[in-house]
Amino acid sequence: MTYCLAMRLSEGLVFLSDTRTNAGVDNVGTYRKLFVFHPAPDRTIVLQSAGNLATTQEVLDRIRRDLADPGAAESLGTAQHLFEAALYVGRLSVEVTAAHRPALSAVGADGTSTFLLGGQIGDAPPDILLVYPEGNYIRASDDRPFLQIGEAKYGKFLLELATRNELGIDDAAKVALASMVSTAQANLSVGPPYDLGTYRPGEHLVRHARMVPGSDHLERVEAIWARHLHAAVRELPLVERSETSLW
Amino acid sequence: MTYCLAMRLSEGLVFLSDTRTNAGVDNVGTYRKLFVFHPAPDRTIVLQSAGNLATTQEVLDRIRRDLADPGAAESLGTAQHLFEAALYVGRLSVEVTAAHRPALSAVGADGTSTFLLGGQIGDAPPDILLVYPEGNYIRASDDRPFLQIGEAKYGKFLLELATRNELGIDDAAKVALASMVSTAQANLSVGPPYDLGTYRPGEHLVRHARMVPGSDHLERVEAIWARHLHAAVRELPLVERSETSLW
Repeated sequence: MTYCLAMRLSEGLVFLSDTRTNAGVDNVGTYRKLFVFHPAPDRTIVLQSAGNLATTQEVLDRIRRDLADPGAAESLGTAQHLFEAALYVGRLSVEVTAAHRPALSAVGADGTSTFLLGGQIGDAPPDILLVYPEGNYIRASDDRPFLQIGEAKYGKFLLELATRNELGIDDAAKVALASMVSTAQANLSVGPPYDLGTYRPGEHLVRHARMVPGSDHLERVEAIWARHLHAAVRELPLVERSETSLW
Repeated sequence: MTYCLAMRLSEGLVFLSDTRTNAGVDNVGTYRKLFVFHPAPDRTIVLQSAGNLATTQEVLDRIRRDLADPGAAESLGTAQHLFEAALYVGRLSVEVTAAHRPALSAVGADGTSTFLLGGQIGDAPPDILLVYPEGNYIRASDDRPFLQIGEAKYGKFLLELATRNELGIDDAAKVALASMVSTAQANLSVGPPYDLGTYRPGEHLVRHARMVPGSDHLERVEAIWARHLHAAVRELPLVERSETSLW
């Protein structure tokens, strides 16, 4: 599986993706799931993917082919709004999935993919959108300005607790990383390296980092996270219990 | 939905259940999901339930009817081992589900339930088992001595991190509670009151507590938990990023 998340804050956008893929437990690989497109000076678009790896790769190949084709009717370079870019990616995703559905259904496989699309086009504010396998999309909510795809449940508690519009990008990146580490702790199908990208309005560049397993940085993160969780548990008040044989 | 968990430690057993039920978002109720049976001096059996509420209640009614019937071929009072009690509960669950399947399938509803069964019979060591809707069961693993039913993903990271055989019962109850609070934070279908039960080998009584929403205790738990998570995030090292427009 996969875990990708994106945040939309007043300071800008934060993207974090793991890189683990698996087709069954005996075929585990490492693939990037965070991609940056800068097809024109007025736009920066980040795409994150979860789901069928073949579908994801073909969608990305079609996106790049359309970008390279000056005659393409539609591309990430022609969209005038982020929601148009989301609908475009959704349409490609639906097409690719439909093309392979008969063969995949025959072996019981699901060929769908889900995407997070974020960034900025022109002077419109930066935004993040989730593109469903059916090709439609949603935005993040104003109260909980984050979106997740893949194994979203394991790390959701921390995003709910700590993600607010006014959070700075550096702190938001830490929240995202803690959510990722919690997920990887609970689910073997999510794992490092982790790809982080951040975007500030008007900059049209994505600052990025890859955190690799065993690195000093990631080991510090995991150690600090575990230490605080243990400290929190220790400080919790004792639960007084009554004694009865029946209840 | 529901979140129930059970732990098997060298000191004894810990059980924790939420009480929220929902049939759609407009029909939310509070029902106990943790039940203690003490049908004979040599046995204490705790049952936790997740899934269809009607199935759960009918299974519990049948368990009680069998206990009250001296001629019953099988009951929680006749099982010689915990695994026999688990198979008995599994058989009742399969029977009840099968009886209502035609009517429920017709309206697209799922009538299955999943149970955690724990406790002690005779001199055998205390144990916990998970009873699947199909009537079979599994035990907890020695390395990760806990079981979960219902919305298990949200609070799993902390159990993975902190649940060890050698954890004392009081500390394990805190770990369980932190896992529950994290789950309720991320999922509206899980909520207080929370029912806690603990069991020490040979005691044949379950010490129990109910934690109600808005109580000083639960508010302290939620505040301490949130404070440590925020502190952990603050202490995490900054992620240094490179600057490029493309990546």
